[in-house]
Amino acid sequence: MEAHVGPVKGLMEALASLPGIGKRSAERMVYHLVRAKADAEALEGALRSMRERVRNCRLCGNLTEEDICPICAGPRRDKQTICVVEMPQDLARMESTGAYKGLYHVLMGTLSPLEGVGPKDIRLKELFRRLAEGGAEELILATNPTAEGDATAAYIEGRLKEMRGGKPRVSRLARGIPAGSRIEYVDSGILGEAIRGRRQVPDQGGGARRKGL
Amino acid sequence: MEAHVGPVKGLMEALASLPGIGKRSAERMVYHLVRAKADAEALEGALRSMRERVRNCRLCGNLTEEDICPICAGPRRDKQTICVVEMPQDLARMESTGAYKGLYHVLMGTLSPLEGVGPKDIRLKELFRRLAEGGAEELILATNPTAEGDATAAYIEGRLKEMRGGKPRVSRLARGIPAGSRIEYVDSGILGEAIRGRRQVPDQGGGARRKGL
Repeated sequence: MEAHVGPVKGLMEALASLPGIGKRSAERMVYHLVRAKADAEALEGALRSMRERVRNCRLCGNLTEEDICPICAGPRRDKQTICVVEMPQDLARMESTGAYKGLYHVLMGTLSPLEGVGPKDIRLKELFRRLAEGGAEELILATNPTAEGDATAAYIEGRLKEMRGGKPRVSRLARGIPAGSRIEYVDSGILGEAIRGRRQVPDQGGGARRKGL
Repeated sequence: MEAHVGPVKGLMEALASLPGIGKRSAERMVYHLVRAKADAEALEGALRSMRERVRNCRLCGNLTEEDICPICAGPRRDKQTICVVEMPQDLARMESTGAYKGLYHVLMGTLSPLEGVGPKDIRLKELFRRLAEGGAEELILATNPTAEGDATAAYIEGRLKEMRGGKPRVSRLARGIPAGSRIEYVDSGILGEAIRGRRQVPDQGGGARRKGL
């Protein structure tokens, strides 16, 4: 006979359909929630609140409760710099560093011809509209260091070359060996990029290729 | 500044408070649910349905939508055998084997003096009331093979010895090396139990110590 009662099975399936949640993990959550119905109710409320209150910023695409997000509306943000990221979670990660004070533009994806994602399917039109309005002096392409992320950055660079006047300068995030890693364990592709992108030490008569943010 | 907008943070916290869900895993779920609001709504509905419809069977403690669960009410179940398990998930696992046709009794926990869980805190009174009503011929103690599970089974055995007349015979799940494992990798405690509990092969003139279910 069916080992799980209907609503228990339904909740397991709803949880197991989420990314990264396996069947066993969904089961464990459900058996917790069955006993702790206050937790289940709190989770319901959190889901409803998220659904009803969270939307994308009309300018940058960031998650927000307002029409314009606090970053775009922030009086202390550097409005001459726009950092292009793939997803809102990338923006949140950038913000968590505290190292960036400019604005963002969230593409909501990457170009991916294999999956049928073309320039019209991500927020590129909105990006070029922002750039055409002027005011941006630097565009930081912070797409992921993957084939799709690199292709998307290259596409944006290409489109910018075609733009007339008032173009921002373009930069990309530094690529190399991650802080805290050990060279003996670093992937050879990563190490190769770090060698090709090596920087002369300033004292020796050169200069970092770009100033920091 | 705060990297996450309020309702996003709230949902992350509600998810991360569930057993087995870490911060990164909660983040991943939230970013999925923000984009797939239909999934968020479905999950809300599944939670509400579980909260409103699932309760514990008045007889055995199993999760059910009825007053008496389909197993207790099932005309084809062997009502002379009661299998005692710790939690509803153990019952579901037993049912999934298809190897058992009797009834259950869910204790909703184990004795655990260290955590202040005594006989009155789990469904032992309900078990002995069922046994006092008569009709049970065999009681299978299927608590977990842990210190708490074994102590709980031993407690039940002790209480049964004190019972007058109409006592069921008592059995425990077989302990030994799990099917599909390899002896070279089996924990020495498990292997020790398998050696001490070894069974004579029937053809050689002995017999399995207990008949199967």
